[in-house]
Amino acid sequence: MTNVKAFVFDAYGTLFDVFSVTKKCEELFPSKGDQISQTWRQKQLEYSYLRQMMGKYRPFSTVTRDALRYAVADVDAELSSDNEEQLLNAYKELTVYDEVPGVLKELEEQGMTLAIFSNGSHDMLDPLVKQSPLAEYIDHIISADDINQYKPTPASYTHALDSLELNRENILFMSSNGWDISGAKNFGFHTAWINRNEKPVEKLALEPDTIYSDLTGIKNWS
Amino acid sequence: MTNVKAFVFDAYGTLFDVFSVTKKCEELFPSKGDQISQTWRQKQLEYSYLRQMMGKYRPFSTVTRDALRYAVADVDAELSSDNEEQLLNAYKELTVYDEVPGVLKELEEQGMTLAIFSNGSHDMLDPLVKQSPLAEYIDHIISADDINQYKPTPASYTHALDSLELNRENILFMSSNGWDISGAKNFGFHTAWINRNEKPVEKLALEPDTIYSDLTGIKNWS
Repeated sequence: MTNVKAFVFDAYGTLFDVFSVTKKCEELFPSKGDQISQTWRQKQLEYSYLRQMMGKYRPFSTVTRDALRYAVADVDAELSSDNEEQLLNAYKELTVYDEVPGVLKELEEQGMTLAIFSNGSHDMLDPLVKQSPLAEYIDHIISADDINQYKPTPASYTHALDSLELNRENILFMSSNGWDISGAKNFGFHTAWINRNEKPVEKLALEPDTIYSDLTGIKNWS
Repeated sequence: MTNVKAFVFDAYGTLFDVFSVTKKCEELFPSKGDQISQTWRQKQLEYSYLRQMMGKYRPFSTVTRDALRYAVADVDAELSSDNEEQLLNAYKELTVYDEVPGVLKELEEQGMTLAIFSNGSHDMLDPLVKQSPLAEYIDHIISADDINQYKPTPASYTHALDSLELNRENILFMSSNGWDISGAKNFGFHTAWINRNEKPVEKLALEPDTIYSDLTGIKNWS
């Protein structure tokens, strides 16, 4: 049996469904929404990696805006400031996956510490959690932005650990992003990959401890 | 007038056309070749970024193999070791873009130092250059692998500089990869983005000094 005291969740794609952003893209850019939202997400990650490597850190809210501008330019469309604001605001109003509130409630009743740990800056994360049904269960909202780092650097996971005042072996980290699970595993957290899209394991020689298709799986975790 | 003494080129996609790899993918995995080669390239870059951030460096040849394995698994196909070897060997037999030999010849006649600077490890780069018509023009093959770094870290570009024994302002760096141009600009090289695919400029607040649609453009560079 492991001695887990805190369940730490990634936010985007793990607890919160970003599908509503895709929908909003399609609404504002008919027939181009899918491509825009895919490029947007890809560039959002890529820009965070590149900025980390170049030593040019900017908050995730800035990176998200820049990635959106690229994605719209990439399909030769125009992005008005009103549309830009609507799309960025959509990130603060995401819905949660169906099973999430029930699972979090159960874990809370078992006395577990529940935390979110995300690349998202607090200006994005705090309003998102506040408007969601998860607000009452989440004990800590931790952002890698507090120390100007992005996951998956070891320093970013160290920040989560320090914020929780626990040891690595007391943490179970959950994410739908394979690369995030690799980073957490590399750092020494217990890991559960929430593989919502039936993707292959990332070939980074850092296999997840457990894999579940959605968050209900972690109720069996031990 | 700038005082450029060395023309430094990225390899993959800049001098060498990776289309033949796509063709080989399609030959071995009919109807899935396009998707495999796209995912392969995307994961190849992503894994280099992630390994750099995690402090888990491996040579580009390893990362390229791992990315291929992911890409094939992602379309639920099987990768035999024979097919794997064929596809990895394709990277050592790439053709150059049509205009490249002529441009390099002209620059050499002007007494310029010509170098390749790539993430590719020497086991990939050296045979590639040797079998190409560029071998007679290239004075230096520099790999970021020599110091266990990946572009776009500042350390990687420092290595190119040290290898050439020049100052930053003596270098014109050319790449078809927008992120690579951002990294070189961030470091302080002169930059020319060879925008072969008519993509938007990366939104990283590091604009290229010049943009050309192919390599002939640099003949006008001053």
